[in-house]
Formats: sequence, structure tokens, C-alpha cells
Amino acid sequence: MKVRLIIMLKQGVLDPQGKAINHALHNLSFQEVQGVRVGRVIDLEVQETSPDQAKARAAEMAKQLLANGVIEDFEIEVMA
Amino acid sequence: MKVRLIIMLKQGVLDPQGKAINHALHNLSFQEVQGVRVGRVIDLEVQETSPDQAKARAAEMAKQLLANGVIEDFEIEVMA
Amino acid sequence: MKVRLIIMLKQGVLDPQGKAINHALHNLSFQEVQGVRVGRVIDLEVQETSPDQAKARAAEMAKQLLANGVIEDFEIEVMA
Amino acid sequence: MKVRLIIMLKQGVLDPQGKAINHALHNLSFQEVQGVRVGRVIDLEVQETSPDQAKARAAEMAKQLLANGVIEDFEIEVMA
Repeated sequence: MKVRLIIMLKQGVLDPQGKAINHALHNLSFQEVQGVRVGRVIDLEVQETSPDQAKARAAEMAKQLLANGVIEDFEIEVMA
Repeated sequence: MKVRLIIMLKQGVLDPQGKAINHALHNLSFQEVQGVRVGRVIDLEVQETSPDQAKARAAEMAKQLLANGVIEDFEIEVMA
Repeated sequence: MKVRLIIMLKQGVLDPQGKAINHALHNLSFQEVQGVRVGRVIDLEVQETSPDQAKARAAEMAKQLLANGVIEDFEIEVMA
Repeated sequence: MKVRLIIMLKQGVLDPQGKAINHALHNLSFQEVQGVRVGRVIDLEVQETSPDQAKARAAEMAKQLLANGVIEDFEIEVMA
């Protein structure tokens, strides 16, 4: 089973990498872009048959190791 | 409209950050993890009404600026 | 002239990527490792002859665009 | 002893993040910038008294886990 973890800076936290990309896209005439936020994806291949269990375990991994709860939020998608 | 770009190293390309996370998760007793791949997420807020058009433009952005086609693949999701 | 910008999370801010690498290194028997912090490097090639001026401008770039002053610190090295 | 590992994409490898920053800096009137390359820093706190030994071990860590030798180069600095 593949589980995808998406880790983004929390809404209030400044995101300089996103800002740089926003500028660069405008510069290349992608004027429709109004905001950019950058984050990390972590794709996990897990030996697990229950999607709910896979999700709960991935949340555990995020909390214990992969995300910084003070400045980051995470989402989990079970992919297959 | 929000468009999400997921950029991952191509299948054959070694991913040392993923490998480090895999080791660390085993160390923390997440033994079910069998593989980890790390990538970047870029969330774009775009002024655009057609999902198809938004997708096509995001693919253009990825090709021109955001992804390195030699070593990276990308996926696009229209989110809302 | 080449200018290197090193951007790290501030001392108090948790660094989950560093933590993952620390675990992984222990797992590979690099027991001497006692702490790991991960950051970003941005190498700038600038048309500028004064090192002091190059440094001042790079600090401006960091403040305006490249670093998040709330959670990140930066250092600047003029390289050549 | 603190050891700093700097990991950059090899010279020939395209660097889309660097390109985005380059564009953004021009947009903000930092016209002196002529090229930008982005990399990762990994600061290691190690229990080790010999700088040479610390350096050799860090090179080992880079090769085994932290850098992708196919697309990335690394430098090591012993900091204190």
C-alpha cells in the first residue's frame, strides 16, 4: 500500500521559496498565479492491508519524525 | 482555483533523503515501511476557471521552470 | 564574484529532517553523530567587485526573499 | 566538533529552484545576479577529536546516505 504524506508550512508562516517561485512565474508571464506555497511530499510504501491503519501509522510517523508540528501541517492520502 | 504540482525524482534516480527517512522510521519501529521517496509540492493559487486550462498551464510552468525533466517527473492535481 | 548564503532553522526550531538523518546515521553505525541540522544553500554568481557590497546585497536578498526571518537564520560567505 | 556538509547538484544538472530564484531576484531589481544554484546543508555535531578523521567519516556518510553521487557533488568543512 502506498501512502502519501504532504507537509506544508502552516497558513500564517511566511514561505520565501513560494514567494520566489511566484515572482519567477510572473516574470515568465504566468500572470494568473496569485499565490504559491511550497512543501514536501513523502511517499511511503508500507506493508499494511487496512487503509485506516496505514493512515493512522503515517500520522504517527509525521508526529514523531517527519513534520514540525509548530510550523507545519500535514495531510495523508492512501494511494493504492 | 488551486492547483497542486507534485514533483518526484524519476523511478531510477537514487533518493538519499528518502533512504535516510526509511532508516529513521525503522529505527523508531515503523517496520512496515518498505520504501520512501521524497519530493516537492508546489501549491498554486490561480485565477482561472477551466480546470483543463489550469492543468495545461501548470504543466507549462513545470516544464519551463519548476521541474528538472531529466531527473524529475511531475503530477498535477486540480484541487478546487 | 560568488556569494554563498546558508539558511538554517533558528536554534529553538525543531528540525524533523535533521532528526531523521540523525536516526539513519546511527542505524548505519555512525555513532559519533550527536546532532544534525539541515538547511539550504543558495550560491549566487554576482557581477560585483566589492566583497562588502556583495555581502550587503546578499543580506538584502535574504531578508526580502530568500529566508523566513521568523524561523530561519542566515550566514553569508563571499567565496571568490 | 561541528562538520558541515554542502551538497549541490553537479555542474551539468539543471537546477529549476535556482532558476526560479534567479528570476525572482531580477524581478526585485537585484540585477547583478547572474546565476543561482540551490543545494542542501547538513550540519553534523560529532564526538570526534581529529578534524581529518571527522572529515573522512562525513565523506563516508555522504556516500552511503546523504548525497546522490550520480547527480550531486559534496564539500565538507570542519567548523570548530
